[in-house]
Order: sequence, then C-alpha cells, then structure tokens
Amino acid sequence: MPKLVDHADRRSRLAEAAADVIAGQGLDATGLRAVADASALTTGAVTHYFASKAALIDAAYDAVMDRLLERQAEGFFGDPPAPAAIVDQMAAVLPVDSAGVRDWRVWLAFSARAIVDPRMQQRHRAYYARITAALAAELASAGAPAVMADLVVAILDGLGIRMLLEPDDWPPSRVAATLAAAMPMLFPASAEVSP
Amino acid sequence: MPKLVDHADRRSRLAEAAADVIAGQGLDATGLRAVADASALTTGAVTHYFASKAALIDAAYDAVMDRLLERQAEGFFGDPPAPAAIVDQMAAVLPVDSAGVRDWRVWLAFSARAIVDPRMQQRHRAYYARITAALAAELASAGAPAVMADLVVAILDGLGIRMLLEPDDWPPSRVAATLAAAMPMLFPASAEVSP
Repeated sequence: MPKLVDHADRRSRLAEAAADVIAGQGLDATGLRAVADASALTTGAVTHYFASKAALIDAAYDAVMDRLLERQAEGFFGDPPAPAAIVDQMAAVLPVDSAGVRDWRVWLAFSARAIVDPRMQQRHRAYYARITAALAAELASAGAPAVMADLVVAILDGLGIRMLLEPDDWPPSRVAATLAAAMPMLFPASAEVSP
Repeated sequence: MPKLVDHADRRSRLAEAAADVIAGQGLDATGLRAVADASALTTGAVTHYFASKAALIDAAYDAVMDRLLERQAEGFFGDPPAPAAIVDQMAAVLPVDSAGVRDWRVWLAFSARAIVDPRMQQRHRAYYARITAALAAELASAGAPAVMADLVVAILDGLGIRMLLEPDDWPPSRVAATLAAAMPMLFPASAEVSP
C-alpha cells in the first residue's frame, strides 16, 4: 500500500518551517534548501509544494497572518468589552512568548522586504484591509468609532517592534501599562463626561 | 594649493547616499560600490570613510535618527501643547513626503535586519531610549503621564509602517484622523471630567 501523505498538512508544516528559518536566520538565509533541512525533507520534496523562495516566504507570512485573523474572528475585545480584558487580549497578540516572537519576526522581515517588492506589498495590503475591517466592525458594535481600528493596529505594530528589538526592556508590566494608557482613547464615550 | 576636503561634510554626504541606496534598492543591494556610484566617488574614497558595508548602514541609520532627535530637541508638542498642533507635529515626522519616505525606509530596513544582528539591535535600543526619554520629559512638562511616551512612539512607528507599505491608502486626512483620535488619550486630564 503506497504511503499516504496529507498534502495540506505537509504544505502547512513547510510553511511553518519556513517561518522558523526566517525568524531564526533572516529572510536572506531563507531558501528551499534551508527549509528542507529544517523540515527534514529533501529539496525536491519542498519544490513539490513551493516552486520558489518567494512562494515559501509568502506561505510563511500567510501562516502568521491567518493565525491572527482566526484569533480576531473569535472576538478580539470581549463581549461586553472591558478595559482589563482588552489589555490582556491586545497583549496576547504581541510577541510575549517564543511562538509570538517567531511570528512577529516573520512579519517584520516580510514588511521590510515589501518596501522594494510591489507583489509583497500587495499581499500585506490585503491582510491589513481584512484586519482593519474586522477590528472596525467589532469596535463599532462596542460603541467605539471606526477610526480607532487604525489606531489599535498602529499601537500593536509599534509595540510589537519595540518588544522584538528590545526584549529585555519590555517586561509584561510595561506592555500592560502602555496598553492601559490607550484605553481612555479607545472608548472615549465612557471616559468623557460633558462639563 | 592642495584641494581642501571637508571631511565631516563628505562623511555626511556618504551617509545620505547610503540612505538613498537602502531606501531605493534595499539593504541587500547596499554596498560600498553602490554607495560610491550614488555619490559619484570611487569605492576607494568611500572606504576611506567607511571600512565596511555595516559601517555604511550604521551611518545611514544614524543620519535618520539624528535628524529625528534634532527635531525633538526643538520641542515636539508645542508650548503650550494644543491638540491640533500636536497632530500636525506628529504627522510631520511620518513618511508624508519623499524625504520622509526615504528616512522611514531606512528605519524599517535597519529594524528588520537588527532582529538577527545584536550589534544593530544595541544601536536601535540606544536611540529609542533617547527618543523616549526626551518625549517623556516633554509630556511630563505638559501634564501628561510619562507612559504616554511609549504610546506615542508606538503610534508613530505603527502608522509609519502602514504609510510606507500602503501609500495610496493613507492620504493626509486618514493620518490626521488617526492621530486626532489619540488626543484624548495623550492628555486625559483635559478630556476627563469627574462625574
């Protein structure tokens, strides 16, 4: 009986192996051979699923961003939204553990390369449109203005970079304090009382 | 009479030429020869000032970050701080024109490479400590809590990336609306009235 291979599963495992290589060694070092080594497959097996280095990098980025979108689909701010729960929820998507650090490294490497690659830029843009739309819808149902979605994304991306590049300077307490400081802005209606 | 060369000026021009090459072609393409070509000097002249590709990249990053620090030293939020002026001031350091786009591209390329380069990470960290301290001092004198400095930096970095990667989606109006939405957070004392 021939060996059965779950192609979707193998494809997904290769994408994760590519994410490991990007996060550990950088985008420059990421090629079909490095990913084959990381996944204990032959280069030929990798090329069966991914025709090029670019396709591998796309797949790693897709894996990271799809994970974020799935998380968002479960409800990002809680129902009803409460500031403490929102801070926890926002912190949880930041690079607070090794899996998060890995995903954020892939994100940052992809973003930087996208500057000089219109195809990658288009991919980034499509994901950000989906993320922002989902956030805006959830914020609207919680009574917050839709423009806050852009602000939430900016805060998360900006904090994520700091945490990646200054891991020793960003203990959970500093992350939580920064996010907590943003709460009056996110739901200004609850913080403002007309004089 | 021998030709006089202003060494500081030439060094600075080479750093700016390196920034042009990084922004236009990416970090991978940035080498002594590319910078020599961009500055109409010989590779030998470039190596007189910068011994390696790494030294050139550092110099380009320094030029970008020093420009930001000089701007900050002039007072970032205005005195007294007013929301509309702060929005203008924050927008002005974002990639809103070709010079800003160039500087932000250098910043993003450097940040992404720093993930796998501890030496670059240390350089990033030192600049961010200075920027954050200067912002915190200015915010404190305007009556805003020091934690807001981390939030302001995150918002600017996060918005800067979006503007770089989705230039067509971020007209000045969207940038201004996002920054304006952050104002109640920056100076909560002025927005909150006890019930």
